[in-house]
Amino acid sequence: MAFSPLVEELITALRCLPGVGPKSAQRMALHLLEREREGGFRLAEILERALEHVGQCQECRTLTEEPVCSLCRSERCNSELLCVVETPADQIAMEQAGGFDGRYFVLTGHLSPIDGIGPDALGLDHLEAKVRRDLVKEVILATNPTVEGEATAHYISEMLQHLPVTVTRLAHGIPVGGELEYIDGGTLSRAMAGRLPMAK
Amino acid sequence: MAFSPLVEELITALRCLPGVGPKSAQRMALHLLEREREGGFRLAEILERALEHVGQCQECRTLTEEPVCSLCRSERCNSELLCVVETPADQIAMEQAGGFDGRYFVLTGHLSPIDGIGPDALGLDHLEAKVRRDLVKEVILATNPTVEGEATAHYISEMLQHLPVTVTRLAHGIPVGGELEYIDGGTLSRAMAGRLPMAK
Ligand SMILES: [Zn+2]
Ligand SMILES: [Zn+2]
Repeated sequence: MAFSPLVEELITALRCLPGVGPKSAQRMALHLLEREREGGFRLAEILERALEHVGQCQECRTLTEEPVCSLCRSERCNSELLCVVETPADQIAMEQAGGFDGRYFVLTGHLSPIDGIGPDALGLDHLEAKVRRDLVKEVILATNPTVEGEATAHYISEMLQHLPVTVTRLAHGIPVGGELEYIDGGTLSRAMAGRLPMAK
Repeated sequence: MAFSPLVEELITALRCLPGVGPKSAQRMALHLLEREREGGFRLAEILERALEHVGQCQECRTLTEEPVCSLCRSERCNSELLCVVETPADQIAMEQAGGFDGRYFVLTGHLSPIDGIGPDALGLDHLEAKVRRDLVKEVILATNPTVEGEATAHYISEMLQHLPVTVTRLAHGIPVGGELEYIDGGTLSRAMAGRLPMAK
């Protein structure tokens, strides 16, 4: 005994959401069908539209439906400063913290040989080209303070060492082993202000 | 500073899912866009199809894409026994517990005057008609053991008292204040076996 085939299919499809197990997928499916049809239709429509149109910014690789994101188009940015983050959520967290007027580069992950994520997947050739072309003076490595984030920062630092650019790392103050996007703005702001040259 | 408009729209649309706050909606949106596009397209497609085609069974009101659900069509059911539950999930939980070979009636909720949910919204006229027409001998009230579930059971019991039908309630053994769908099969089975006549 189970739900009808289409309801079961919906429960299975909802499992693609992060943190959603069988019981919450069931609760979500029944909630949508019993009480939230309008919201459900809107979700289906926007999800399809977002998947079709949202890609990566040609400049910074963040998620956007435009060829170049609003931040990369904005006048306000100091193109001599480039902050490298792991995810679009980290970029938003840094922006919300304030105190930085440069541009960003979004790796969309960190080096993870075990998962087959190498320099190509993170667009590191694109990062190097951007540093040269935009005459960047300082690259601030704001990858997560985790083992993988540190390894990625070291890799990038070595990759850039032959270029006339200062490579810095967010100051400690950010808790070791934490996830950047969950850190409060004040801490992020102070970490940015106290950034240090990357040890070579 | 926020995500691009379409990404923000997706984050907002995901909030219609139960238990999903701003932070998990953001995590879901980025996960779908960065890593789970195939699953996301499938989810959008199945969600739309389910919302278009899944309705209520004409007999028992459970969720199904057919006019009459497979359980109401099955030969196995003893149509003299009718088990009244609050939700399709409760019906599945009762079926998985085993030990019952009758039919079901799904209220899709409980009486809640404060939310404007009265007898009409629960299809109680339809329930009464079904009891008459199918010559039901026993109606087992398996609403949740909560204040609202008890009140709904009492209302139905009174509604049916002029008909030649025995009205029973699941035996205690089900924990008071609990949610039927989270109770283990053994307990549900025993509660069904020990059911008692409804106090009038
Ligand atoms: Zn950009
Ligand atoms: Zn049915």
